[in-house]
Amino acid sequence: MSDASPVPALEYIFHPRSIAIAGVSTREGGTGMGGWAFVQSLMDVGFPGPIYLIHPTAHAIRGLRCYPRVTDIDDDVDYVISSVPARHVPGLLEDCIAKGVRVLHMFTAGFTETGDAEKAKMEQALVARAREAGVRIIGPNCMGLYVPASRLAMMQGQIAEAGHVGMVSQSGANAGEFVRYATSRGVRCSKVISFGNGSDLRAADFFDYLADDPGTETIVAYLEGIQDGPRLAQAIRKAGAAKPVAILKSGRTEAGGRAASSHTASLAGSLQIFDALCKQAGALRVESMEELVDAGVTFQFVKNLAGPNIAVVGGGGGTSVLAADDLDSVGLKVPPLLPETQEALARVTNDAGTSIRNPVDTMSMWEEKGFDATMRPLAEAPNIDAILYHTSFGMGPSGRAFGQRARSQMQAASLSRLQEEAGKPVIVAIRTPTDPGGFELSLEFQESCWRAGIATYPSIARAGWALAALLRWKAMRPA
Amino acid sequence: MSDASPVPALEYIFHPRSIAIAGVSTREGGTGMGGWAFVQSLMDVGFPGPIYLIHPTAHAIRGLRCYPRVTDIDDDVDYVISSVPARHVPGLLEDCIAKGVRVLHMFTAGFTETGDAEKAKMEQALVARAREAGVRIIGPNCMGLYVPASRLAMMQGQIAEAGHVGMVSQSGANAGEFVRYATSRGVRCSKVISFGNGSDLRAADFFDYLADDPGTETIVAYLEGIQDGPRLAQAIRKAGAAKPVAILKSGRTEAGGRAASSHTASLAGSLQIFDALCKQAGALRVESMEELVDAGVTFQFVKNLAGPNIAVVGGGGGTSVLAADDLDSVGLKVPPLLPETQEALARVTNDAGTSIRNPVDTMSMWEEKGFDATMRPLAEAPNIDAILYHTSFGMGPSGRAFGQRARSQMQAASLSRLQEEAGKPVIVAIRTPTDPGGFELSLEFQESCWRAGIATYPSIARAGWALAALLRWKAMRPA
Repeated sequence: MSDASPVPALEYIFHPRSIAIAGVSTREGGTGMGGWAFVQSLMDVGFPGPIYLIHPTAHAIRGLRCYPRVTDIDDDVDYVISSVPARHVPGLLEDCIAKGVRVLHMFTAGFTETGDAEKAKMEQALVARAREAGVRIIGPNCMGLYVPASRLAMMQGQIAEAGHVGMVSQSGANAGEFVRYATSRGVRCSKVISFGNGSDLRAADFFDYLADDPGTETIVAYLEGIQDGPRLAQAIRKAGAAKPVAILKSGRTEAGGRAASSHTASLAGSLQIFDALCKQAGALRVESMEELVDAGVTFQFVKNLAGPNIAVVGGGGGTSVLAADDLDSVGLKVPPLLPETQEALARVTNDAGTSIRNPVDTMSMWEEKGFDATMRPLAEAPNIDAILYHTSFGMGPSGRAFGQRARSQMQAASLSRLQEEAGKPVIVAIRTPTDPGGFELSLEFQESCWRAGIATYPSIARAGWALAALLRWKAMRPA
Repeated sequence: MSDASPVPALEYIFHPRSIAIAGVSTREGGTGMGGWAFVQSLMDVGFPGPIYLIHPTAHAIRGLRCYPRVTDIDDDVDYVISSVPARHVPGLLEDCIAKGVRVLHMFTAGFTETGDAEKAKMEQALVARAREAGVRIIGPNCMGLYVPASRLAMMQGQIAEAGHVGMVSQSGANAGEFVRYATSRGVRCSKVISFGNGSDLRAADFFDYLADDPGTETIVAYLEGIQDGPRLAQAIRKAGAAKPVAILKSGRTEAGGRAASSHTASLAGSLQIFDALCKQAGALRVESMEELVDAGVTFQFVKNLAGPNIAVVGGGGGTSVLAADDLDSVGLKVPPLLPETQEALARVTNDAGTSIRNPVDTMSMWEEKGFDATMRPLAEAPNIDAILYHTSFGMGPSGRAFGQRARSQMQAASLSRLQEEAGKPVIVAIRTPTDPGGFELSLEFQESCWRAGIATYPSIARAGWALAALLRWKAMRPA
């Protein structure tokens, strides 16, 4: 059936007008997962339709009216979230069918991933019945949807502002991690789907959908196993041809493969075959959540990277040496600056203990005019393809004393102007802070940067990885 | 001369009773480096002796009496910091000699590292004159000393609490980064030395000294170049035989080598040769500042690691799969738990959607009794050598709502008790927070852990790297 339904038909699953949730506990607190946490997330993100609770005995929970069964609701219900124990799901599904519900999101776990044959059979029977009746299942064993434009959220803290990065994720925790880290660096999402065991709708369906979705410009994915190998390969090829795609495939080791099997009943499959598929599809394969987030940031913000020649600018002689090592070791270049560029820099700085070669490490850039005057010759240098500015906040009380906040804003504005004028990427690495004051200043500078269209990274090494990955990705694409 | 002076004789350079600083500017503000920043750092850390300023014309700066020359001070001066331009250093040195100053720390740059032959000659002449007169030089082009027990600091924010990790660093920025990151994770330092160009005292002298220093239990180092190859090799072998040693050697790439030459006039040399030396010396060679900090944390906190078998515990199925991949790929093992261990875990948890295999991902551990009851069978498992617990703080407003703070303290106490009772390492990975509330909770948990003797890492991958590195290091040591 999933083969028979054309992809654009999936559009409706992302726009429910009303939601019912079964399995909310009447006791306060709890573990913060499932049940009420879904209600709270939907309320926080501003879901505009009614949220109905299904509970066998309670009349209301925290102010929300409860109904014994879905069929008792005197309104249309588009979408049901199941947080009940596995043994109650067949009954819930029957009620969904009777009610005309179109999508059942099963947070409920305890099926194929347990390794128990009876439970695997139960999952298969549920899917067969749902397909027969025209109900689509997301899950089981998953967090479902984060769709900011529809005000759907799977976890608390997920914001209503929509963007153009779509995600396909076999893990809810990892979908949440991606959203959390990427959001703080300015990435905004179109649709994020956690699909767990993928009993009905699965990775191939969502790649297909996101490839066609006009609201999605970039696709990232976290996969544990390969379901329907040929169909998934086809969907990844289609997505890769249409848009930038980055995929984190776990289970790449023996221990990881075993863990994937416990988690989502996934057969991890051969990493070599998957890697070959990605190369053929022009999709970037990454190896960690950090890389997946960095890829999302890079695809969204870094435009017009023409080559590997990077000018590195920032304070600290030793930091500069390590930066040069980090960039060189991933295949980038930190070329010596041309004489005319060095002369332009020498006009701004003449301090001992600084360098105007590349990496550039001058005192002048800490002063207002000096910053722009240091960056401009680099942006204009014909042998430089991108500028990487690195900084950090909060080394002791000096952080605030020297007017960091005003300087941050000035710097972000200057970097953005130069990126625009020079038509080459300007990116920023903000090294990890260690104290609360430094953390807040880092967060502010990060936001000033991404609001001005500048990509930010939490270390020089990660910024270097991202530019190198972007070049690798470009090299895989047809010219 | 540096060969002629026996190492323990260096002890005096770490205990000045009075300090004079030349080159403090009369204007407020400035770049935050050199001059007054040294004064402020010494005041902040509580240097107990007098600090004299040397200034050609000013009578006082910010309340501190100025003297035109070192020789005008009517008191003994043990240690002089030079922040004057390079051309004034020869005169300053003559005054130091006349005054009987024993150590000249030259923050002043602009010598050999410029690549200018005249300036290199000037540096050589300074060293020759200083040696002839018995004055030792630290630098030029460096930040000098952080010695908490003597209340010497090179940067603001450096604390007075002393510990047992010594550092040799060719870069002041990198010495500062090490101290900043390691301090926040509970590492405490004995002596940290930034020696820049190493014109007189250099890496070999400080390795020799720290190898003998009874206050130093672990040695970390950041090196850019190799000076006096055979003598440095000898000193590293001596240090490596005496204590755990970790070395970050930069200039490992073409671009890095060029940067090292600009920075401290270093000839980076062959990484292969240096790597062989480290292996022979039983010193751990690392490739980034992150790894150097992780090594410092690991040497200080992780005791009795008998083998590579790790139990991983924490929330998130996808996180668990990635954790297994991360650990397996650095050579650790995440073995399936024995039936009796799984049975013990099953008595605490019976939720669907969780795993008691390894990685362990259960809901029960979020409750007070469940945490200890989940960790204890792992600590007692005969096929497990260490426990890695991973967590994060501040995913949305839930962080505070569920009483994170009390739970953190309970968890740290439980982990510490288990580490003690089981006699095997228990370590913690706290994934990077993205909001200020999460940052503060992370910092608090981190502190609860290290105060309880538990090593903390900012990611599962870095925790895995550290344990694998510790095993590699142990394998290099004579049995």
